[in-house]
Amino acid sequence: MLMEECGVYGVYMKNNENAIPYVVEGLIALQHRGQESAGVAYVSHNEIKVYKKMGMVAEIFNNGIMKKLDSSFAIGHVRYSTKGKSEIQNSQPFHVRFKNDHFAIAHNGQIENAEELRLKLEEQGTIFLTESDTELILHILIKNLRKNINKWTLEDVANIIFKEVSPSYSLLLLFKDRIIAIRDKYGYRPLYYYVSKEGFFISSEDSGFYFLNSDVNKIYEIMPGEAVEFSEEGIKKIKIKSSEKRYCFFEHIYFARPDSNVFGRNVHLIREELGKLCAKENPVDADIVVPVLDSGFSAALDYSKESKIPIEMGLMRNRYIGRTFISPNQEDREIGVKRKLPPISQVIKDKRIVLVDDSIVRGTTMKKIVNMIKAAGAKEVHVRVASPKVLNTCHWGVDIPDKNELIAAYMDIEELKNEFNADSVGYVSLSSINELLKEDFKNYCFHCFVR
Amino acid sequence: MLMEECGVYGVYMKNNENAIPYVVEGLIALQHRGQESAGVAYVSHNEIKVYKKMGMVAEIFNNGIMKKLDSSFAIGHVRYSTKGKSEIQNSQPFHVRFKNDHFAIAHNGQIENAEELRLKLEEQGTIFLTESDTELILHILIKNLRKNINKWTLEDVANIIFKEVSPSYSLLLLFKDRIIAIRDKYGYRPLYYYVSKEGFFISSEDSGFYFLNSDVNKIYEIMPGEAVEFSEEGIKKIKIKSSEKRYCFFEHIYFARPDSNVFGRNVHLIREELGKLCAKENPVDADIVVPVLDSGFSAALDYSKESKIPIEMGLMRNRYIGRTFISPNQEDREIGVKRKLPPISQVIKDKRIVLVDDSIVRGTTMKKIVNMIKAAGAKEVHVRVASPKVLNTCHWGVDIPDKNELIAAYMDIEELKNEFNADSVGYVSLSSINELLKEDFKNYCFHCFVR
Amino acid sequence: MLMEECGVYGVYMKNNENAIPYVVEGLIALQHRGQESAGVAYVSHNEIKVYKKMGMVAEIFNNGIMKKLDSSFAIGHVRYSTKGKSEIQNSQPFHVRFKNDHFAIAHNGQIENAEELRLKLEEQGTIFLTESDTELILHILIKNLRKNINKWTLEDVANIIFKEVSPSYSLLLLFKDRIIAIRDKYGYRPLYYYVSKEGFFISSEDSGFYFLNSDVNKIYEIMPGEAVEFSEEGIKKIKIKSSEKRYCFFEHIYFARPDSNVFGRNVHLIREELGKLCAKENPVDADIVVPVLDSGFSAALDYSKESKIPIEMGLMRNRYIGRTFISPNQEDREIGVKRKLPPISQVIKDKRIVLVDDSIVRGTTMKKIVNMIKAAGAKEVHVRVASPKVLNTCHWGVDIPDKNELIAAYMDIEELKNEFNADSVGYVSLSSINELLKEDFKNYCFHCFVR
Amino acid sequence: MLMEECGVYGVYMKNNENAIPYVVEGLIALQHRGQESAGVAYVSHNEIKVYKKMGMVAEIFNNGIMKKLDSSFAIGHVRYSTKGKSEIQNSQPFHVRFKNDHFAIAHNGQIENAEELRLKLEEQGTIFLTESDTELILHILIKNLRKNINKWTLEDVANIIFKEVSPSYSLLLLFKDRIIAIRDKYGYRPLYYYVSKEGFFISSEDSGFYFLNSDVNKIYEIMPGEAVEFSEEGIKKIKIKSSEKRYCFFEHIYFARPDSNVFGRNVHLIREELGKLCAKENPVDADIVVPVLDSGFSAALDYSKESKIPIEMGLMRNRYIGRTFISPNQEDREIGVKRKLPPISQVIKDKRIVLVDDSIVRGTTMKKIVNMIKAAGAKEVHVRVASPKVLNTCHWGVDIPDKNELIAAYMDIEELKNEFNADSVGYVSLSSINELLKEDFKNYCFHCFVR
Repeated sequence: MLMEECGVYGVYMKNNENAIPYVVEGLIALQHRGQESAGVAYVSHNEIKVYKKMGMVAEIFNNGIMKKLDSSFAIGHVRYSTKGKSEIQNSQPFHVRFKNDHFAIAHNGQIENAEELRLKLEEQGTIFLTESDTELILHILIKNLRKNINKWTLEDVANIIFKEVSPSYSLLLLFKDRIIAIRDKYGYRPLYYYVSKEGFFISSEDSGFYFLNSDVNKIYEIMPGEAVEFSEEGIKKIKIKSSEKRYCFFEHIYFARPDSNVFGRNVHLIREELGKLCAKENPVDADIVVPVLDSGFSAALDYSKESKIPIEMGLMRNRYIGRTFISPNQEDREIGVKRKLPPISQVIKDKRIVLVDDSIVRGTTMKKIVNMIKAAGAKEVHVRVASPKVLNTCHWGVDIPDKNELIAAYMDIEELKNEFNADSVGYVSLSSINELLKEDFKNYCFHCFVR
Repeated sequence: MLMEECGVYGVYMKNNENAIPYVVEGLIALQHRGQESAGVAYVSHNEIKVYKKMGMVAEIFNNGIMKKLDSSFAIGHVRYSTKGKSEIQNSQPFHVRFKNDHFAIAHNGQIENAEELRLKLEEQGTIFLTESDTELILHILIKNLRKNINKWTLEDVANIIFKEVSPSYSLLLLFKDRIIAIRDKYGYRPLYYYVSKEGFFISSEDSGFYFLNSDVNKIYEIMPGEAVEFSEEGIKKIKIKSSEKRYCFFEHIYFARPDSNVFGRNVHLIREELGKLCAKENPVDADIVVPVLDSGFSAALDYSKESKIPIEMGLMRNRYIGRTFISPNQEDREIGVKRKLPPISQVIKDKRIVLVDDSIVRGTTMKKIVNMIKAAGAKEVHVRVASPKVLNTCHWGVDIPDKNELIAAYMDIEELKNEFNADSVGYVSLSSINELLKEDFKNYCFHCFVR
Repeated sequence: MLMEECGVYGVYMKNNENAIPYVVEGLIALQHRGQESAGVAYVSHNEIKVYKKMGMVAEIFNNGIMKKLDSSFAIGHVRYSTKGKSEIQNSQPFHVRFKNDHFAIAHNGQIENAEELRLKLEEQGTIFLTESDTELILHILIKNLRKNINKWTLEDVANIIFKEVSPSYSLLLLFKDRIIAIRDKYGYRPLYYYVSKEGFFISSEDSGFYFLNSDVNKIYEIMPGEAVEFSEEGIKKIKIKSSEKRYCFFEHIYFARPDSNVFGRNVHLIREELGKLCAKENPVDADIVVPVLDSGFSAALDYSKESKIPIEMGLMRNRYIGRTFISPNQEDREIGVKRKLPPISQVIKDKRIVLVDDSIVRGTTMKKIVNMIKAAGAKEVHVRVASPKVLNTCHWGVDIPDKNELIAAYMDIEELKNEFNADSVGYVSLSSINELLKEDFKNYCFHCFVR
Repeated sequence: MLMEECGVYGVYMKNNENAIPYVVEGLIALQHRGQESAGVAYVSHNEIKVYKKMGMVAEIFNNGIMKKLDSSFAIGHVRYSTKGKSEIQNSQPFHVRFKNDHFAIAHNGQIENAEELRLKLEEQGTIFLTESDTELILHILIKNLRKNINKWTLEDVANIIFKEVSPSYSLLLLFKDRIIAIRDKYGYRPLYYYVSKEGFFISSEDSGFYFLNSDVNKIYEIMPGEAVEFSEEGIKKIKIKSSEKRYCFFEHIYFARPDSNVFGRNVHLIREELGKLCAKENPVDADIVVPVLDSGFSAALDYSKESKIPIEMGLMRNRYIGRTFISPNQEDREIGVKRKLPPISQVIKDKRIVLVDDSIVRGTTMKKIVNMIKAAGAKEVHVRVASPKVLNTCHWGVDIPDKNELIAAYMDIEELKNEFNADSVGYVSLSSINELLKEDFKNYCFHCFVR
């Protein structure tokens, strides 16, 4: 399973209402983008403060906490967990002090020239208190804007970031009197805002506005290369030229919520289209289409429609499993997957099955699923992946491992088939995605799908 | 949403291995049957002890706790939450002391003659420390078996319970040297056991055995009117005559896990059949079938197949919502449902929709969903319920409210249509279920579907 | 260290204010009487409910919980921890159901005829859901008062308890419209109430009223053999004849707070008197008097005054030690005591020390302290115990172990001296306590001090 | 009550044993120096990691956590809480990244030239992620030592810190292969190490070694201006000239544990001496000496001895109060103090009382105590303070408020008497402390006692 680097949410209430509960609701709506830690930065007594903790949003922000945090504007962040980086000091928002002033930052993305920037800064004697690329942005801002923070203009901030910081970033900055949202010139990660009578709301995905009963006509995309300031004086924008787009295609495939609309497309619908392409490219004579829940569901729906093979719930998904599991038999490798995705044997037995998942990275889970389904009596299992082969790592915010761990990078289709113990394996080709997206194809980043 | 009275799980390890981790895994597999509290009763230093807490299984039983609890046989229980009864003293298993001996009990079901038994016992001066019907069984056993607990035979226990306690009950009793499982003569609630080389496993649903990589040929149903003892000496059974069965049809409709097989039928498949019947009885000209996730999914699949109307993900399900929600606008009634089941507008817009849910009880949620979908642009919404109208309360373990809260009990189809703001409403009739089940129809309890 | 069976606290607010915060404050004041679990029973929507948990009062009852619990009268309980009994089901108050009515009980004490009552009740088929003697009282009440609980009069309740239940008990009963407080005829355990303009307050010790800024003239003892009812109609009392008193002398020696006044005496002052008697009976030529903090402090003060040997802080007390300790050297037996009571070497070195403690039960800690002090350089250590030798167990609420664990029961003074590695050992004799208490001597229970 | 800025503890095990349990034990021993947050920095897989949390040591480091943290050398920190600074990002140790290497720091003290350093660094574009002065040290080190961290020598590190960072600091640095301990040239804060067969232990106070059953001959002071490196190669030291000492006298008066020996003196004994001086300078005809527990106890002992007025427990100390308190009467100002320090009326009544406390800062608590004691019946209350008047704030690590909040800075003795409602007030003069300390007087900082 891939995991992305975060979600960001900001709220500026024009009516002086407490913004924190809205930020918390927004973070809950974005929880799928990061489940390790969550936090908010807010303004209290003319100081910027941060409340953040390891854990899920709904556990961290109970009613008691929220009554204590009061601020009419604030930003928030959810972060995902990877090994060795899960210390509290890496959780966001970050809070910076400079010349008796403060600001805070929440960042979704990964800075391509991070190492270079880091080395450059370290040569100047800069140290880093966190392991996060986001800290670089703080240093860059200060190194280039020596004046007091309260004198920084939108132009100051945006120009420095656009000039010095390589994509990808969709980020929020909290100052004592405003919020600034900035999206990199290539637009790798999505970023939206919503304008209501009561205030401004900024979110990684537009589904973060639904709990507001949002009017779709008042949801705006922050464009690649655009910086937007939200303050008492309303909205102010600047934009640099962005001739080239590089929308992350994995947002469509896996990260974003199905009900979100990112890069101008509904996520569920594009997943369906990918399922359809997969069916066209990899037809097979079979009895049922079985989705790997939850993420493979959308694609499986249209694989079924296109192929006329009925969709069936051959795998359940158990939502209650915790970290407590003690396998009764350590040698048995399939137990973990069986707890999480138990097969429905009566559906599977003696069937020729098309198993549809959204993507395959290392392939270890898929191997276990196929074996489990065969053990449950399936006659044939045809693996269908509703995305191209993942062949390359990512430097812009998707936690794809190195090439030597990417199964499709070192195995051909025949080898994959054998490895998975499947009867056939099929992906979607980039060229059919090209046909699907047409003109828009050039606006996406497919780096991880190209050798 | 209906909620049932619990799940039970028991383990007797023949190889002296610690049974607690298995019980905990089993309870996780049964978590859908009760999410309020969980507990285990086990034998420690020749005493029976209980560890139980409010909360979810995986939170209660961390590794630290499980290392402290060691017993080669044990029983466990998960309980659901209803208002006003969620005190820790009602959580199970119960632990009883009598004449310097102990036993423990875990119960799934509801005793029909509870009030009568209670009055009778109270006349004899018996008091009750809990609000649970289960406590009655303890008193009944002791009142009738005055001798020391360690002299109670399987026959003693089973005969008293079968004679004195009205169904429904699927229950586990833990003694210092054995576990006894008893299912009432009508078989309202399911109960299964599995025999492996290492031990005996008892579970409310057979899906509780899957984590063991269970061999399907060694899974046995504990029959209505049957009592089974698991001990060092193996398995011992007795059975009373059970000429009439009353399997709870709601186990099929809503309670059991889709991958479980209860009352001889796979739960997912029977839900599909109900979806098909619903389509046959309530055809409609429409563009898409939309399931109310997760419970309406199985039925929607076959409604789609039968009707040839494609299934679509018109509603998502957000799994991260907690209890923290602070509505920005208290008057807005649809926000709660929108957080939990956000609509995918691009799927819904301008469509004629068949909305499929597993059942309707009070109807309040359905009303909100229909309104939300219409607000999202649906042209028509046809509500289809993959079960009969719920017309009556239940005295055997399903938390169905009184008749005056059952919307189908006081509204006809036309009124329901108006109340839901739907374009049509359709249920499954009992007679078509009769056709479906054929001979087996008489073995089910349909009390709640009959006025 | 001895540990007693609990503290009880009750509040009836005449002004309809929420009583729960007062009960919680009262339980905090009584926390020294029990630190394992705490709970309150209260009236909500005409039902009696219980909120109880394992842990310390101030952790269990945070502001969030207290806002949810609202009741103008309530009772509470703190309980101590002993091995094997620390399950949540034994924590109080208990909550009873009988004929659709409820009451709750909180008990301090231990019932002498418990086994007999239990057997008698078990012969009638009564079972016990807890391991607590307190449950017996519930059964006794119901067996003897078959009518509805709301018809029970103060006389009904009190007469049954006085007649059927052997001391010791200081207990509170909560009904839907009142609180009843009952103290056994011998008065083993203290019980007080306070009358303010706003309400009635009942407490195991009068120090439980201090946070109310209580007027000492309105604090009343509930007398041995007295039962008091607190309700809307004010206070109603009945009293049985109590010709013989048996006040627990250990309340003076160890249990009660130094600022409390129990059995007509200030606890700190009587401890001082015991220290003085100890000095008179066991004079010694020494350099300093060192108290074993905290409980030995009062006695040491007057040992010092009487002997003219200056008191000195030779031992500190570290209040921050938790349960985390990992000894660097498992063989080193003194480390545990050194963490808790670190010696101040500069005070101790080359000194002849009188070490004063309130009492000695098993003697294991005293042995460690003496060795530790000698290792710190003390020239001589004279152990002085400000109470008589503990020779016998207790059946009325003090957790004194069996005789074979009571060091003074199987060792004479010479042996104790050797065992402790002390230079002398001295106790207070019962006869000098007799002289001290004079007429009042006969009103105390000295059972544990008599062979 | 004053609160100091922290305690530090370090362990280097020569036998490769896990050092973390020792650090945790050490932090528990130093818990009185900081109760807001605690943390450890350790080496794992050749990386430096930090585990820190808000709360008390014994709660943060349970057995489960300690099993996960394994490192044969580590440093730890406890921090106190002041308003507005209690965010997790200010808790220590800090963890720094520079040129793909790491180190960690734990600091006790306050840097006098912090603002100056900060401005200088900010002019160079340095930002601060915390509000802690300690972060400055990190930047200073890197700015001056551009080479890779693993090439830093003891001399490099020590020379930079001694040269650039103004006292006060007693600090520990953790590198991947060693620990460096540094104490500023004036020696404001104490710092000790202990050498055992198994390893090296460093602690703010020598009482941090007692749980090791330490041999007093192997405890060494890290001298003012000294830096000590602990590594596989043993101990290496360098020392700069330190002609002038400035030991913080408040360590004696209030901060350090009574059983600690700091600046060559036992803390309890010097407090006693201060009590004696107070008695000499401020004699009074009275009945009893009453200490304000716990901190006033040592001084009261010798006030009593010197004055021949007996010491008495007129005030208790309740150790169980939490943060839950809801005053029944908000207007009643004395309730808070009454909960914490309940008076023993029988001791106080009709007595002329000498009330001894260690120090007075704002005077608000003292006022409440005097009023409470008078309300409890005291005839006279003579306030005696076993330290000089606090007249000035502190820039070296003691959280003394501004002058306008220091009661002795704006009131003379007559006004203090009236403000406290006392019958007399007496302090210890600096000149009698001069007589007491003799030659050593010049080695202390008395800045806060001088106008």
